Amino acid sequence: MTHHSGDVLDPRAFRRALGNFATGVTVVTACADDGSRVGVTANSFNSVSLDPPLVLWSIDKRSGSYSVFEQATHFAVNILAADQIVLSNRFARPGEDKFAGLDYDAGAGGAPLLHDCSARFQCEKYQQTDGGDHWILIGRVVAFDDFGRAPLVYHQGAYSMVLPYPRAQEGSVPPGEASCRQKRLEDNVYYLLTQALRSYQSSYQPKQLSSGLRTSEARMLMVLSSDEHMSQNALLCEVAMPAREIEEAEEILCRKGLVTNTDAGYRLTPAGEEQAAVLREIAVKQQEQVLASFSAEDVAVLKKLLRGIRDNA
Amino acid sequence: MTHHSGDVLDPRAFRRALGNFATGVTVVTACADDGSRVGVTANSFNSVSLDPPLVLWSIDKRSGSYSVFEQATHFAVNILAADQIVLSNRFARPGEDKFAGLDYDAGAGGAPLLHDCSARFQCEKYQQTDGGDHWILIGRVVAFDDFGRAPLVYHQGAYSMVLPYPRAQEGSVPPGEASCRQKRLEDNVYYLLTQALRSYQSSYQPKQLSSGLRTSEARMLMVLSSDEHMSQNALLCEVAMPAREIEEAEEILCRKGLVTNTDAGYRLTPAGEEQAAVLREIAVKQQEQVLASFSAEDVAVLKKLLRGIRDNA
Repeated sequence: MTHHSGDVLDPRAFRRALGNFATGVTVVTACADDGSRVGVTANSFNSVSLDPPLVLWSIDKRSGSYSVFEQATHFAVNILAADQIVLSNRFARPGEDKFAGLDYDAGAGGAPLLHDCSARFQCEKYQQTDGGDHWILIGRVVAFDDFGRAPLVYHQGAYSMVLPYPRAQEGSVPPGEASCRQKRLEDNVYYLLTQALRSYQSSYQPKQLSSGLRTSEARMLMVLSSDEHMSQNALLCEVAMPAREIEEAEEILCRKGLVTNTDAGYRLTPAGEEQAAVLREIAVKQQEQVLASFSAEDVAVLKKLLRGIRDNA
Repeated sequence: MTHHSGDVLDPRAFRRALGNFATGVTVVTACADDGSRVGVTANSFNSVSLDPPLVLWSIDKRSGSYSVFEQATHFAVNILAADQIVLSNRFARPGEDKFAGLDYDAGAGGAPLLHDCSARFQCEKYQQTDGGDHWILIGRVVAFDDFGRAPLVYHQGAYSMVLPYPRAQEGSVPPGEASCRQKRLEDNVYYLLTQALRSYQSSYQPKQLSSGLRTSEARMLMVLSSDEHMSQNALLCEVAMPAREIEEAEEILCRKGLVTNTDAGYRLTPAGEEQAAVLREIAVKQQEQVLASFSAEDVAVLKKLLRGIRDNA
């Protein structure tokens, strides 16, 4: 089970293991003296120090944008909000002018500040450290914005959102101490939705993982199983994964003989259809088990109201 | 709105702005030559390089555990799973023997490896960089485990979970292309739960934030409003926030005159009760609005089934 570098560390397995650490998603931008602007999607951002106020992130040494970060005096870190997947994908791929048609302001040193983020940090370059195949860039924060929007999250190769914990540990509150609040909560639909989803998730996910596929691969198989052919663009929209992850999942699924990539787009092989059927079976069985004790009429009402909440909230 | 260092960067506002970047939670451990073991909760972990395989994290220069990290040849990064809040809290506070009664294995260099994590990385110390009031520790990964468990997430001072995106953008899939899958999904309770909660959350959270309180402060007020007095321990259990965040939220709420901390525990002031009532009002109004178009009978069925799913899934 444990991977050892003695057996040569498998870079793909290593990257997948790193994907267990959930992170926000940032777009880091800079502007060179000649006015050329760059922006790259990065999840390697982190805070370092409060006094002085320092943050860091790292950039691939081979990145075409690096020369501008090297020349620039400043960079800006834009922390993306939950509804900014399109921005994340745009800045994750190489492109001529990633800022075309985009609203932004110029921050310190001209670094582009994006709109509608969760927070933004304008940084003076402070120090650069060698980090193997990446450069670690440390910046001193000279200005920042705090918009507090719900964040975009990246975990195991797929985009996610944050689901606040309704409470810490089941049963860990001294009995009686929270009974009054508890009664009120039992009547609150938001709280009950959170609790029900959490409970559903924690019994469902291990079963899905038992297929040997990661969340990202399972998601891709399930999406592909319902369509004849699908372009990468359509797939990007549908599975909420960055292009790089789709390519990696595709590679793994192709190697396993579950998916082929033709000129017409991605397509499941017969083995892939079988695997997707297994995943659907897991999903259906889970649902049957969860709903077993309820009448068909009640389940119909549940589905109707969940659709209604989705469409009206 | 924008904070500038010209006006002297407010460290509290800066730290709160940094809290918009969601992260996983790790416990980093090490063992000195004399066998003394340390472990600290850190969310400053990140990947740096695939070749060589490097990761980094940073530790407060004033940390009592630092001397062991300084002496040790290795450290281990344990990425916590969603149900390990108790471990996160245990290693976040200073303590005599944080490992007492805990199951763990000895990894490279004797660094403790915790059980039931999402992933673990055993690292040889590679480089240490000055990062203001922290040391940045870079490690070369010599072995790792990938358990793939759902992760514990930290955002805006509170623990959270990851909620997978059911799909990328509403309406962004070419019409017709996903209609078959769509029909199947419309019948899947897990999918509908995710969608309903996401929609509820995105219309509710801005209203809650409009009170001027952060998620962590609002959570603390709501919990306190239902109880006469509450010990810090009980509060820790109930609001799912680390002790440091509770102290900070308490400080802010005390400064605003909403909470007092007496020998008997935390307590809301009359102004605090009023503010909590406003938050409850927001929650109730939101629920009324979301459920407005449904009959009382249907809503009763919804609540019953959500409770049932929570208890049986």
